[in-house]
Amino acid sequence: MKQSKTFVPTLREVPADAEAISHQWLVKGGFIRQVSAGIYSLLPLGRSVLRHIEAIIREEMEHTGAQEVLLPALQPADLWHQSGRYDVYGQELIRLDDRNGRDFVLGPTHEEVITSLIEQEINSYRKLPVTLFQLQTKFRDERRPRSGLLRCREFLMKDAYSFAANWEDLDHTYTAMYDAYHRIFERCGLTFRAVLADAGAIGGEGGTHEFMAIAESGEDTVVTCDTCGYAANLEKATSVLDSSAAAKGAEASSGSGIPGDSAAASDQEDVPEKFHTPGMKSIEELIHGLGIGADQYIKTLIFAADGNPVAVLVRGDHSINETKVLNQLSAITLELADEETVKSITGAACGFAGPVGLRIPVLVDAAVAMMSAAVTGANETDYHLRHVVPGRDFSTEQVGDFRNVQAGQRCPCCPSGVLQTVRGIEIGHVFKLGTKYSDSMGATFMNAGGSEQSVIMGCYGIGVTRLLATIIEQHHDEQGMIWPAAVAPYHVHLIPVSLQDSVQKEAAERLYAELSEAGIRVLLDDRDERMGVKLKDADLIGLPIRIVVGKAISDGLVELKERGSKDAAERVGADQAIALVREILAK
Amino acid sequence: MKQSKTFVPTLREVPADAEAISHQWLVKGGFIRQVSAGIYSLLPLGRSVLRHIEAIIREEMEHTGAQEVLLPALQPADLWHQSGRYDVYGQELIRLDDRNGRDFVLGPTHEEVITSLIEQEINSYRKLPVTLFQLQTKFRDERRPRSGLLRCREFLMKDAYSFAANWEDLDHTYTAMYDAYHRIFERCGLTFRAVLADAGAIGGEGGTHEFMAIAESGEDTVVTCDTCGYAANLEKATSVLDSSAAAKGAEASSGSGIPGDSAAASDQEDVPEKFHTPGMKSIEELIHGLGIGADQYIKTLIFAADGNPVAVLVRGDHSINETKVLNQLSAITLELADEETVKSITGAACGFAGPVGLRIPVLVDAAVAMMSAAVTGANETDYHLRHVVPGRDFSTEQVGDFRNVQAGQRCPCCPSGVLQTVRGIEIGHVFKLGTKYSDSMGATFMNAGGSEQSVIMGCYGIGVTRLLATIIEQHHDEQGMIWPAAVAPYHVHLIPVSLQDSVQKEAAERLYAELSEAGIRVLLDDRDERMGVKLKDADLIGLPIRIVVGKAISDGLVELKERGSKDAAERVGADQAIALVREILAK
Repeated sequence: MKQSKTFVPTLREVPADAEAISHQWLVKGGFIRQVSAGIYSLLPLGRSVLRHIEAIIREEMEHTGAQEVLLPALQPADLWHQSGRYDVYGQELIRLDDRNGRDFVLGPTHEEVITSLIEQEINSYRKLPVTLFQLQTKFRDERRPRSGLLRCREFLMKDAYSFAANWEDLDHTYTAMYDAYHRIFERCGLTFRAVLADAGAIGGEGGTHEFMAIAESGEDTVVTCDTCGYAANLEKATSVLDSSAAAKGAEASSGSGIPGDSAAASDQEDVPEKFHTPGMKSIEELIHGLGIGADQYIKTLIFAADGNPVAVLVRGDHSINETKVLNQLSAITLELADEETVKSITGAACGFAGPVGLRIPVLVDAAVAMMSAAVTGANETDYHLRHVVPGRDFSTEQVGDFRNVQAGQRCPCCPSGVLQTVRGIEIGHVFKLGTKYSDSMGATFMNAGGSEQSVIMGCYGIGVTRLLATIIEQHHDEQGMIWPAAVAPYHVHLIPVSLQDSVQKEAAERLYAELSEAGIRVLLDDRDERMGVKLKDADLIGLPIRIVVGKAISDGLVELKERGSKDAAERVGADQAIALVREILAK
Repeated sequence: MKQSKTFVPTLREVPADAEAISHQWLVKGGFIRQVSAGIYSLLPLGRSVLRHIEAIIREEMEHTGAQEVLLPALQPADLWHQSGRYDVYGQELIRLDDRNGRDFVLGPTHEEVITSLIEQEINSYRKLPVTLFQLQTKFRDERRPRSGLLRCREFLMKDAYSFAANWEDLDHTYTAMYDAYHRIFERCGLTFRAVLADAGAIGGEGGTHEFMAIAESGEDTVVTCDTCGYAANLEKATSVLDSSAAAKGAEASSGSGIPGDSAAASDQEDVPEKFHTPGMKSIEELIHGLGIGADQYIKTLIFAADGNPVAVLVRGDHSINETKVLNQLSAITLELADEETVKSITGAACGFAGPVGLRIPVLVDAAVAMMSAAVTGANETDYHLRHVVPGRDFSTEQVGDFRNVQAGQRCPCCPSGVLQTVRGIEIGHVFKLGTKYSDSMGATFMNAGGSEQSVIMGCYGIGVTRLLATIIEQHHDEQGMIWPAAVAPYHVHLIPVSLQDSVQKEAAERLYAELSEAGIRVLLDDRDERMGVKLKDADLIGLPIRIVVGKAISDGLVELKERGSKDAAERVGADQAIALVREILAK
């Protein structure tokens, strides 16, 4: 392609609203333009990258035996009522009426449509297993669409669904997909980890892994062990509790750091004692004011879970993991209670809630249950309690893991591992759905024994549009993008220094023709621009190999440079160019 | 691909609701399934055909220099307000709100989004011309979705948009697209005509052609000349008026066929005369009752055009062309007035309207204006008028072509041609939009002379999903579909007669491997089914070449048959199969 004919509106300035690196470069490089918040047009270079990614995904999906379909975006609301998700999906689900007033949704995902299809078409184990996939546009009305293509309201997704007669076959497909995902992301040049994940709203009783591309800009936190292979999304990650913390808590609580603790009472027979803490509403104020450690304090948060009040207790130095709370309660929504609700439940202003005497359900994090004595809110404004003993002073019937793992904690999977955290972008997800959808939608089949049972399902997603942005998050420098050859819009950026020089011009055009004929994708910069502008644009759009045709062409030489290499451009014979390009692309 | 692993749910019965041939075969052959009226899932075979069509379109579009983009389906309503189409597009435009209450539409087409993009990105003639295309899903809430994939509410479309600094460049792109469309449809194996078309709601001041696939099931009527190259959509077609008809009208009107016409008055000095025609409300009743020809009668129809009443007059033997009426009035909607409105306007029941004394605008078809004397309704229930002379008894200020052309009429383009009509399916459309959208959306550029002007646009659409169905409308027989090789899901259907016979089984698998290795797409029927079932399915899904491996394989022979040929299967050497298949595919 000749650059003078292309529609690549590069910019000199970084767009003001773009925070993520990929967002900045995609807009600046003329790959995308925003149409509305979270809604983008992909311009020719952006579309081209997307097509290369699509081709890789298709190839790897077909390699597993999955068959491509194309399901509609417009889906009858009835199907979503059948699955039960119409009411629980929330505002992310775009709803609309047709001209006859019939309710539809715009598919954020396709479990309903495909389960309904299988329900109609497959009735015998002899037609199982089968895996169907599609590359299709999804719609999700995100609360905060942001970061360019990393979180959109309309985006391309690869979703696959597997149907099996037994769990062994599901496991087999799950493994095949898991392996295919590795190949796909490797071919896209990504550094990533498959991590244990939470099943979330999509549900399902089997296992699930997320594929996380490691990137500073990631919205997710990945927890990994420095010793064994353990890796999990923060939502799902657990750690082994350090029993010394509990001991330390007991010790500190018996110390005299607490104002008014004149008796310095030390054993667990002490009853809870109220003391005055005027204005100390935050943990920081408390631990500073009382001179205690955050790990001696029980943090009490009041939530509305599906509208019902619940208190969750974690240690002062821990944070609450809302996903774990939701899962424990089998709830859909979890919101912090407002001030008025807190007051009506605790009788006190926010900041003074505590578990003692509370008459709503209380979820107790295991680390709290291990504390021997602690400080908590007294459910009375400006007062706290000390010498509070879990199990004695409040019920610890509902103990569980409700906290976020922190770096430095101990691995749950190996004896000596220490957990670390890193930011990640979720690029893929594999789920064992089991019979969640086939049960609710009646997708049953006759098994080999002649009795009816629900189809056992899996689903497997890749955010294709997001993948495009993620590649940039991992492949860029100060000058612009650095595309891996497999997904680059063109392999070679061919730049004659001067179009006025007929020797240069002709040599460049000859090389263009030769490279193109050899099946190499070439962009020839035939624009009437200064060399500085051309080189700046070349670095910006980041094609893997740059070949400059300058004066040295009179000696048969051109300059070749790999975009991703720190090495300076190298002078090579123009007649060797194709061989060298092939060599580089084959790396 | 091995058929035992495929998801191809063929049916034995034709689905009850399927009228169009393509609809019947697509459902029966397991290519598609309906999700809702006009909304379909494409199953693996259907998706495969669509992918082959997409590849052909992409190749031919890129051959013209058009660059691929991907524009969003979710479009801010603001853009549609800017273009002025939000209010006029009607119920076909799907409207919805996002979670913040902002108005969006689901794109039925993309003029707004792309004009807005060009408005932002192109400001100089130096960046023109440029043509962008996409393969993208469109949404139209059709009043009567029907005929399977022929008229859907969600469908894949190829739409292209060209932007030029002058009309010559637009003409050049228009011609390139026109030629590309010919190549695309030829490669898809279609019999089609490019015909003059009406610009319709999409508007534009330039020319426009529709590409019509000739098919009985087509919703459109194509008018062609038997002598010259004239071809037009019925909406647009004109014919030369036969002046003898007018003479005949005058003559007949002076005859005595009309009851009560005792004076047999003959010259134009006769004034209109009312006569009693009780119960004669239809033309059939009238011409039968009066013994006159339909061509002596003026048919008067009362419409509401954008809500305003208008009368349209055509000769009794002609029918009204609503598109021509809409264009004349620059109106968006045209509906027959209801009985009450007719009564308030004419003072008479329906069936007795006439132009004499009518106080609303009257559009007079040219064939009516040529009549020397005629019969019309009297605007009084149970009465008609005779001796009515256009121009004398009612105004003929607004004369034009408001009738549908009929087969047998004379060609407007050549002296001796006679027009014929045939049914067609619109598969493509090329438009010279001019500055309709760039004017309303402010897409201007600086021209070479340094002054600002509106970009000159063209747009070019192909209904990709519809194309798939249209190919079947033209390529099928009593047994099923007959796929042209270029778009067939597989080239070869390879069928061993008996899988129990290890010689047959192994020979089939060897041939399968060899053909696949040669780049030929093969479907191996490895199902444990009776031969009758396999052959029936093979005819149904219609792959171009069938190879049966039976007992003759012990002599090294297989049976080869082309699906589209009437010839019986031919015995050929298994070792020649690849060469023969290649030969057939190269045809």
